This record gives sequence, C-alpha cells and structure tokens, in this order.
Amino acid sequence: MEQIEQKLILITNDDGYQAQGIGVLAELMLELGEVVIVAPDSARSGAACAITCTQAITLQRHPEMERKGLSVYACSGSPVDCVKLALEQVCPRRPDLIVSGINHGDNASCSIHYSGTMGAVIEGCMKAIPSIGFSLRTLKHHCDFDPYRQTITRIAAFVLEKGLPEEICLNVNFPEVEHLAGTRICRMGRGRWVQEWIPANNPRGMNAFWLTGRFLNLEPHSEDTDYWALDHGFAAITPIRLDMTAYDLMGDLEELSE
Amino acid sequence: MEQIEQKLILITNDDGYQAQGIGVLAELMLELGEVVIVAPDSARSGAACAITCTQAITLQRHPEMERKGLSVYACSGSPVDCVKLALEQVCPRRPDLIVSGINHGDNASCSIHYSGTMGAVIEGCMKAIPSIGFSLRTLKHHCDFDPYRQTITRIAAFVLEKGLPEEICLNVNFPEVEHLAGTRICRMGRGRWVQEWIPANNPRGMNAFWLTGRFLNLEPHSEDTDYWALDHGFAAITPIRLDMTAYDLMGDLEELSE
Repeated sequence: MEQIEQKLILITNDDGYQAQGIGVLAELMLELGEVVIVAPDSARSGAACAITCTQAITLQRHPEMERKGLSVYACSGSPVDCVKLALEQVCPRRPDLIVSGINHGDNASCSIHYSGTMGAVIEGCMKAIPSIGFSLRTLKHHCDFDPYRQTITRIAAFVLEKGLPEEICLNVNFPEVEHLAGTRICRMGRGRWVQEWIPANNPRGMNAFWLTGRFLNLEPHSEDTDYWALDHGFAAITPIRLDMTAYDLMGDLEELSE
Repeated sequence: MEQIEQKLILITNDDGYQAQGIGVLAELMLELGEVVIVAPDSARSGAACAITCTQAITLQRHPEMERKGLSVYACSGSPVDCVKLALEQVCPRRPDLIVSGINHGDNASCSIHYSGTMGAVIEGCMKAIPSIGFSLRTLKHHCDFDPYRQTITRIAAFVLEKGLPEEICLNVNFPEVEHLAGTRICRMGRGRWVQEWIPANNPRGMNAFWLTGRFLNLEPHSEDTDYWALDHGFAAITPIRLDMTAYDLMGDLEELSE
C-alpha cells in the first residue's frame, strides 16, 4: 500500500475549482495517492488548448478546501495554463498521473477539439505524463456521479500502474444513466455542430449572436464510435494521439514540394 | 478565368483583422476569387480551437477596408467563432476555400495545438471546406512577406482546384528568409515547450506569472519534420487529420472494456 499512497496525482478541469465534478474526482483520486488540484478560478468551457499570452496569470491557494493529502489552487488562466503552472510552480514533484474533469457535458466526437477538459489532458500528455479526461453527458450543474465512480477508479488505477505510450492520452466519456451498460474502447466518431447561432438582443444596434448548436452525428450506425457508446448507455474510452499528421496523404501532396 | 473568379474564399486569422499578415493574404486570394474576411477584432494568439460560450459575439462590418471582391468583418470572438459566424451569418454562399493567417509566429510541431490560426483551419475542415493555415516564423509585427507570396498562391490554387480529402487540412509554415530553400511535405515534429513561467510583479502580493517558454525539439535531426524544414530554410506543408484516435492502441486497452 505504501508505494501506491506515494503516487502524486494532478487534477484540473474546465468548469472551475469549485465545480461538483472536480470534487468527486478528488475524492476518488485520494484513494490512489496524494492529490494536487490546480484548476481555473471560474468556468472555462470551450477553452480547448488555449493559452494566455496577453495577461499575467494569478495563482491562489484555497486551504479551506484542503485536507490530508489534498492541496487546492485556483488559477486565473485556461485549463492548459493550469497544467503548465502546476508542473513548474506548484507540484512538489513530477505527477504520476493527470486527470481532468469530471466535465459537465460530453467531449465525444469532434467536441474534443473544443474541450478545455481535453485541452488540459493534451497538455499533460505533451509533458509526457499519463493523462486522462473524464466527461459526463449532462447539462446539469449538479449530477449523480455514483454510477461512474468505480469505472473512473479502475481506469485511473490501470493507467497509474501501466502508464500510457508516449504522446497518447485517454478521453473517457460517460452517458447519463443509473447503471452503465458497460465500458467500450472506441474511436472518435465523425460529426460536426450545425445551426450554431441565435441572434442576441442588442440595445445599441450591433449585430450580436449567441453560440449554440445541434450536434450532427455523421455515422450514427457505426458501433465502434464514442458517440454510439454514449447513445447506448456505455462508457466510452478513446485513446487520443498528439500527432495529427495525416501520414497517408503525404505522398499525394508531393507535387506541391519543390 | 471567369470560373476561377467566382470562387469564394473565406479568410480569418488569430492576430486580428488589422494585422499585416491577413492583409497580404487577402491581396493574394483576390487573384483567385471573391474574398470575405471575418477575423477577430483584436489579437487572439494562443486561442487554439476555443469557442465563446459565456457571452454574445458581436460582428461589425468595415466598409473602409473593402474594395471590389473583398468584404471585411471583425468579430469579438475567437478564430473558431469567426469561421462559425462567417459560414452561417456572413458568407453569401458556401466558401470553396478557407485560409487562415498569415500568422506572425510559426505553428509547427506541438504548437499547432495552441494555435488560433490552426483552430480556425480545423473548424473549416470540420465543416467539410478545404482549409489551409499559413504561418511565418517571426516575432515581428511588420514583416517582409514577399518571399512567400508565390508559394502561398500556388498552394491555395492547388487546393482550390483539387480540394482536400475529407477531414484533412493543411498547416503551412514559413521560415524567415530572403529566399526559400524550397517547399517540403512534412510530418509534425515531436517537441514541447519548457521553462514556461516568469514571476510577475504584483503590488497586491498575489502569486502571478507570465507565460513564456523555450521550445524543446525532441528530434532535431529528423529531416522529415516541419521543424527541421523551418530550421533549414524550407517552407513546411503538413497535412493534418481531425480524427485524433490512436487506432493502434485500441487493442491494448481491451482489458479496460467490460
């Protein structure tokens, strides 16, 4: 047991350090090691891998939220800033694992590109630390996370023990159910957001719009996608690669080289 | 000629609608078709694929910057917001091509993940429109873009004529040189940013930091990477895939399914 208790786990999210999901994640990770939370001081939904270049980032400790094995910091930057700051300025040693979430809202299919939860995971992975994002398909601020606790602990313990290959991280998504139908290893489903804007009232006569939208699943019948898994009550584990090169297209483009 | 002139090209960037680079890009694209610019109203460096969920986005036309075949809009959102807004609320028809840049600063290797320039390109690609990002390795606000004009036009014309496969976009980076050594088709080099924070003065005693950093090239001798190309005076064209699934790891994770 002693060896396991000495593992250091960094937790972050994009819903802010006070969100319900990060509290649940901290509780679960405390069973596996020492925990440091460095999370945004307020919600940063849709922050993707954004970094803050134009202002200084503040970091504030919250001892009122701490207990044995848990330290808590809020940061004025993005989820990626949180990971960068945690690794250089907060963590007492190199973390063995980074977990992000539990996000209120799924990050399946193309939504991974917009996700601050997964931005933090991609950053951790870039720093060569095994990193996992957890997200729940829900729009509620307060959710019942009980159906997912065991699966989260199992995945985190697996990665703590075995690690992940270089430049690979995990995107884990849960459906909102009372009992999971199971857990599946998935690929990113193909899809996109459509009908994304509604006009905003604007007393000064400017053109203004709110971002909204409807997800269009481009392959609703493919049973190996993350989206299909969620639609059918399964947790979806999708391994994600940092290298986005389309290797198979490099040959076709050769006529552009000179 | 007439058919070519009817092509519609959407231009955006992350340096703002007034940046020098987007002006050069507009000039070049006007040779290939009708041009609509929808770009952020100020710099959004490091915006990645971020979207704006918590405030309404304003859109303002700038007729003083327009001329025949060119319309110009500034938007209060991120580069991805610009593309989303352009497609639904601005463009008179579906664009045949989206180009983003010319960014002041390269987006090679891992920097693609942080790049607002490439965020817009990824968004365009998600919407199934051929999309290209152009970036110049420089820190100057005012640069000499002449050495790159011909290559930009050639790549854009190639993509306008032949299109790109579904869910593939191009990341084009230029070194700061008087004469390009050539153009190479590359893969994303492996690398990461290190030593990323310097303490900020803070009169109120908070912990505060500025993001900075040094790029660590993890494979400086690999001649097929974008980073190597830039280091050696070549333009780098890297085909980028939206699907980030690490397919080869799915089997290894099967013991996590249940």
